[in-house]
Amino acid sequence: MSLTLTLVIIAGLLAVLYGAVQSAALLRASPGNARMQEIAAAIQEGAQAYLRRQYTTIAIVGVVILIIVALLIGPLAALGFAIGAVLSGLAGFLGMLISVRANVRTAQAASEGLEKGLSMAFRSGAVTGMLVAGLALLGVSVYFTILTSGLGYDPTSRDVVDSLVALGFGASLISIFARLGGGIFTKGADVGGDMVGKVEAGIPEDDPRNAATIADNVGDNVGDCAGMAADLFETYAVTTVATMVLAAIFFRGTDVVGNMMLLPLAICGVCILTSIIGTFFVRLGKSRNIMGALYQGLIVTGVLSIGAIWWVTNRMVPGVVTVGNRTFDGMNLFWCGVAGLAVTAAIVVITEFYTGTGYRPVKSVAKASVSGHGTNVIQGLAMSLESTALPALTIIIGIIVTYNLAGLFGIAIATTSMLSLAGFIVALDAFGPVTDNAGGIAEMAGLPAEVRVSTDALDAVGNTTKAVTKGYAIGSAGLGALVLFAAYTEDLKYFAANATPGSFFDGLGAVAFDLSNPYVVVGLLFGGGLPFLFGGLSMTAVGRAAEAVVAEVRRQFRENPGIMTGEVKPEYGRAVDILTRAAIREMIVPSLLPVVSPVLLFFVIKAIAGKSDAFACLGAMLMGVIVTGLFVAISMTSGGGAWDNAKKLIEEGHFGGKGSDAHKAAVTGDTVGDPYKDTAGPAVNPMIKITNIVALLLLAVLARGVIH
Amino acid sequence: MSLTLTLVIIAGLLAVLYGAVQSAALLRASPGNARMQEIAAAIQEGAQAYLRRQYTTIAIVGVVILIIVALLIGPLAALGFAIGAVLSGLAGFLGMLISVRANVRTAQAASEGLEKGLSMAFRSGAVTGMLVAGLALLGVSVYFTILTSGLGYDPTSRDVVDSLVALGFGASLISIFARLGGGIFTKGADVGGDMVGKVEAGIPEDDPRNAATIADNVGDNVGDCAGMAADLFETYAVTTVATMVLAAIFFRGTDVVGNMMLLPLAICGVCILTSIIGTFFVRLGKSRNIMGALYQGLIVTGVLSIGAIWWVTNRMVPGVVTVGNRTFDGMNLFWCGVAGLAVTAAIVVITEFYTGTGYRPVKSVAKASVSGHGTNVIQGLAMSLESTALPALTIIIGIIVTYNLAGLFGIAIATTSMLSLAGFIVALDAFGPVTDNAGGIAEMAGLPAEVRVSTDALDAVGNTTKAVTKGYAIGSAGLGALVLFAAYTEDLKYFAANATPGSFFDGLGAVAFDLSNPYVVVGLLFGGGLPFLFGGLSMTAVGRAAEAVVAEVRRQFRENPGIMTGEVKPEYGRAVDILTRAAIREMIVPSLLPVVSPVLLFFVIKAIAGKSDAFACLGAMLMGVIVTGLFVAISMTSGGGAWDNAKKLIEEGHFGGKGSDAHKAAVTGDTVGDPYKDTAGPAVNPMIKITNIVALLLLAVLARGVIH
Repeated sequence: MSLTLTLVIIAGLLAVLYGAVQSAALLRASPGNARMQEIAAAIQEGAQAYLRRQYTTIAIVGVVILIIVALLIGPLAALGFAIGAVLSGLAGFLGMLISVRANVRTAQAASEGLEKGLSMAFRSGAVTGMLVAGLALLGVSVYFTILTSGLGYDPTSRDVVDSLVALGFGASLISIFARLGGGIFTKGADVGGDMVGKVEAGIPEDDPRNAATIADNVGDNVGDCAGMAADLFETYAVTTVATMVLAAIFFRGTDVVGNMMLLPLAICGVCILTSIIGTFFVRLGKSRNIMGALYQGLIVTGVLSIGAIWWVTNRMVPGVVTVGNRTFDGMNLFWCGVAGLAVTAAIVVITEFYTGTGYRPVKSVAKASVSGHGTNVIQGLAMSLESTALPALTIIIGIIVTYNLAGLFGIAIATTSMLSLAGFIVALDAFGPVTDNAGGIAEMAGLPAEVRVSTDALDAVGNTTKAVTKGYAIGSAGLGALVLFAAYTEDLKYFAANATPGSFFDGLGAVAFDLSNPYVVVGLLFGGGLPFLFGGLSMTAVGRAAEAVVAEVRRQFRENPGIMTGEVKPEYGRAVDILTRAAIREMIVPSLLPVVSPVLLFFVIKAIAGKSDAFACLGAMLMGVIVTGLFVAISMTSGGGAWDNAKKLIEEGHFGGKGSDAHKAAVTGDTVGDPYKDTAGPAVNPMIKITNIVALLLLAVLARGVIH
Repeated sequence: MSLTLTLVIIAGLLAVLYGAVQSAALLRASPGNARMQEIAAAIQEGAQAYLRRQYTTIAIVGVVILIIVALLIGPLAALGFAIGAVLSGLAGFLGMLISVRANVRTAQAASEGLEKGLSMAFRSGAVTGMLVAGLALLGVSVYFTILTSGLGYDPTSRDVVDSLVALGFGASLISIFARLGGGIFTKGADVGGDMVGKVEAGIPEDDPRNAATIADNVGDNVGDCAGMAADLFETYAVTTVATMVLAAIFFRGTDVVGNMMLLPLAICGVCILTSIIGTFFVRLGKSRNIMGALYQGLIVTGVLSIGAIWWVTNRMVPGVVTVGNRTFDGMNLFWCGVAGLAVTAAIVVITEFYTGTGYRPVKSVAKASVSGHGTNVIQGLAMSLESTALPALTIIIGIIVTYNLAGLFGIAIATTSMLSLAGFIVALDAFGPVTDNAGGIAEMAGLPAEVRVSTDALDAVGNTTKAVTKGYAIGSAGLGALVLFAAYTEDLKYFAANATPGSFFDGLGAVAFDLSNPYVVVGLLFGGGLPFLFGGLSMTAVGRAAEAVVAEVRRQFRENPGIMTGEVKPEYGRAVDILTRAAIREMIVPSLLPVVSPVLLFFVIKAIAGKSDAFACLGAMLMGVIVTGLFVAISMTSGGGAWDNAKKLIEEGHFGGKGSDAHKAAVTGDTVGDPYKDTAGPAVNPMIKITNIVALLLLAVLARGVIH
């Protein structure tokens, strides 16, 4: 086991240790009065019940796929799959455990001051963030160590590569279920609860008489916290693995191959340290600017990371290396890393522009609300479409710059660097549901109005950080998918060049993914359609889940008039239970769409046009998913954020203020934006990557010769 | 001049003759009472004023581009550009002239019976349809005759090919301006008028006290009639030209080249005849089913066309021909033609499923309206996303089938066959605005309620035919763009292979559009983003135009209280005038986006990475625009149709009926769907093709050596 690997594993352990220490500190804080604890207990119970049921369902699908992987590829790949799946689930589960305990403590801390509230909420988010980064890094690096140092496989051997890819697949599978199931749950509760409470019964949001309120709070934790954690765990693990696979292919047989394969792990390792340091710089200054405090930590992390990446790349790549006809050195790779961080920064700024209350887009949506529901939605859709242009341009510039610096491997290193900050970024995001919950608990427990002012201030920032993180998650997923696509094409080249006579790849030759081949066009169209269909299915699912909630709350109001007068407590548990069943039922089909589609397309086209066109068509399908997926996901998350904050802007007293007709129109926009930004949009992320990773696994399966 | 060309030109002249005869018959019908004539005159005046201003503006842009084309390519190309632009404009203008006269006559005829109303409205649509097909066919075939028989150029020479492509470009330019300008006008009037009338003032739709009513009726004519006419003129001309270009490249130097280049013209020619015959079969049967009457005509046209295409392909392609390593005969091309007709039929059926009131999608949107504005919009968006899957699958199957029958040329012939029915399809569409106007005139002139019942029945069918035509226009535009893309790649191959030393293409070699080249990915992402950005810009434009209308109508109500009491007539002309200026101003920037983008991208990438990658990146950009454009356009037009008819379903008395809360929510969805389906979505069509045709022209310019 090399020194580098040892240090990487230590960095991973440090992240987990940070999580443990902070959790312990968190749990020592006061959980507030009896009423607050009672509410928090209901949320905890609901979230645990939901995740238990979700994981049970995923486990059934997972075991089936595990057996298929074991039969078609082998036991090591199956073990990798299990590791990826279990650790991804664990990161989400632990994050949720902390989050449902931090919410009530944040409400309590906020009653002692804004600074204490911020500290509590952010530290809880940081626990989730570090667990995501730490567990993902540990999973990849420890399993890699076991395979190479333990079992003695060559690092570039197919056994190692396939097992790591299978690990990524395990993470992907959890991720899509968690994102989609959690997303349907949280938005079903939110949309359904608002419809039956705010609109029908005329009671305020978070009113304890509404049986859906606990479910709404549970949703924040299982969707925005556990779902996001699984998503970024996956992007982190998959991108690291894909970069390692590319390194194995590009540098096979050279003396730098070892270092090159470890480079992504090393970058992630040092950036865990810079992220941990950054968390200590999140402090409310004299200006009491919450967003400023968070950015301060992010900027410290970013600047330290530049130095750390410089140190790592120059140490691990001491000379000039050559891939094909391109040569580059450590400094080239360092600049690729900087480009990755620059893309992150640009996406953060662009997303804030499109979703922040201080800029043209959100203002225009708020202004359009004055003339009615329709114009609010029209302007929101216009902004949602427009918001895709600059992030796409950023990614385009990133690709061009890093490709010119160090070829495809440069793009991979840039993506790895972008993701190496995931620990801190997830911390920013997981902060959101905690403050959201804290506000809900403050409302339901009848805490003084000034507490609600503090939690509202934290919550507004949470909305922006949630949007920013989603922009980051999608941008990195898009780039990560490009790395996966490169791994697919390079893998295919390798298999075709090294085919044994009579094997599947024998006589395949070079597969051209040329746009003038109609099967490539077919693949692009087929893949391009998946995010649209997937988006449509998941929006419909939210609608159905919301209807189930509406029916249940209506029933409770009808059968028990005491609820409305406040004499009887509604049955919160039943609402959670009904929504749980709805969300689990609705998540299955859309989740399997990206798993089944690549395999189906490959075999259909193979039957029509033969192997070569089938591989070309499959490759084009992957690219089609990436291209439209990127735009669909960004438009949904940014558009949803803009609608949400346009409502907030009006509630702050602009364009007529709370209760005005403009406000009602803005509530409509917010409702539309909810499933857009919290269900369909973010779930497109894992969807993009799962198609790519299934294609990679398909190659591995075909190479093993089990299927012909 | 060959016999075939003579017959094609006669077919084109017959279409124009049909238009003239029917117009004369139409104008002889009674234009109703004085009040009706007064209203109709206001609409006529407004529509003419708008189109005059629109064409003046386009003429300025057009002359600039004409000069550029003349300088960079040559006078013949400039002449082609002028022919395409003028004829496209003429088709739209004449269609509008008839449409604004048929509206009042339809209202009058409807007062004498449903059958008379249908006949009047459909014949008016048929005039526009036949003018579109006839003028487009005449433009291409007469100019081709002049170039070859008149000026003696070889049919496959660059002079002929470039001049025909320039003709397509002229048509494209008019098309994007007309679609977008008309779309902004019509929906600005519609959305603005509804907001200030229905919502604010509480007066019904088409109430004569609303100053925006005349503008709304004008909009139907300049948007749905003239805009659609220009759009399909363009697709028709461009696809025919692109197929001819492909034939010139594929069969250059063989003895079938003449016939192959004339084949698309011949197919269009015979199908003009079958379309004319079909129009006589549109008769209201005993069942009084309006949609059935229209479908009867379409089915007759389709069946006759199958026979006609069989006759043409087998006559013109008597033996076996070879392109590359693929051989095929007339029967193969016949089956490609049948596939094109089958794609048309499938898209008609799928669009009706997603937008008809009798099926799941529209019912689900109507049902979701019961729980509020937000859920209506969510369900509408879900259906809009979902509705892309089946049309895309249809196109995919079409590509695979026709490619296997006769290679890329087979895809081109299928697309030509699909478009050869444009005359009849435009007739179906142009029927819509006439009945819409007739209803408005009946309302404003205070005709008896039973007249309104007849016009409403016609109008409801008009909504479906409009949606169906849009699906057809987009599907054919997508396939047409693929043919253009094939022309781009084949042209590039030709230029690279025949480069003179020192010329731009010298030493270029074969350009690979391989997805593993990052510049291809860059092109896909850049191109893929354009429809989103374009959609965002045009939605915003509608919002701004609507605001201008609202401000004007409010001003009139405020400054002249007599309008509300009915004592004073509002100043309709001012509303039309203000909207005209807004629409013209708003259409410029988005329209130039697809013209400028390909040129800009090419030179930027050329500066960074050299010629070969720049050509690859540009090609990928074209494909990116096609892939996302297809999905964006379909989702917008189908989604918009679903929202519109969900409202109609509720107005028919379902889910609470007119005036219920569900109805209000459905009105919101309809408002959102308006710019979706009538502005942004349809304008994506010409946008897709204009990028492709600009790229083709860029190749021609570079080949002339004026730019290096």
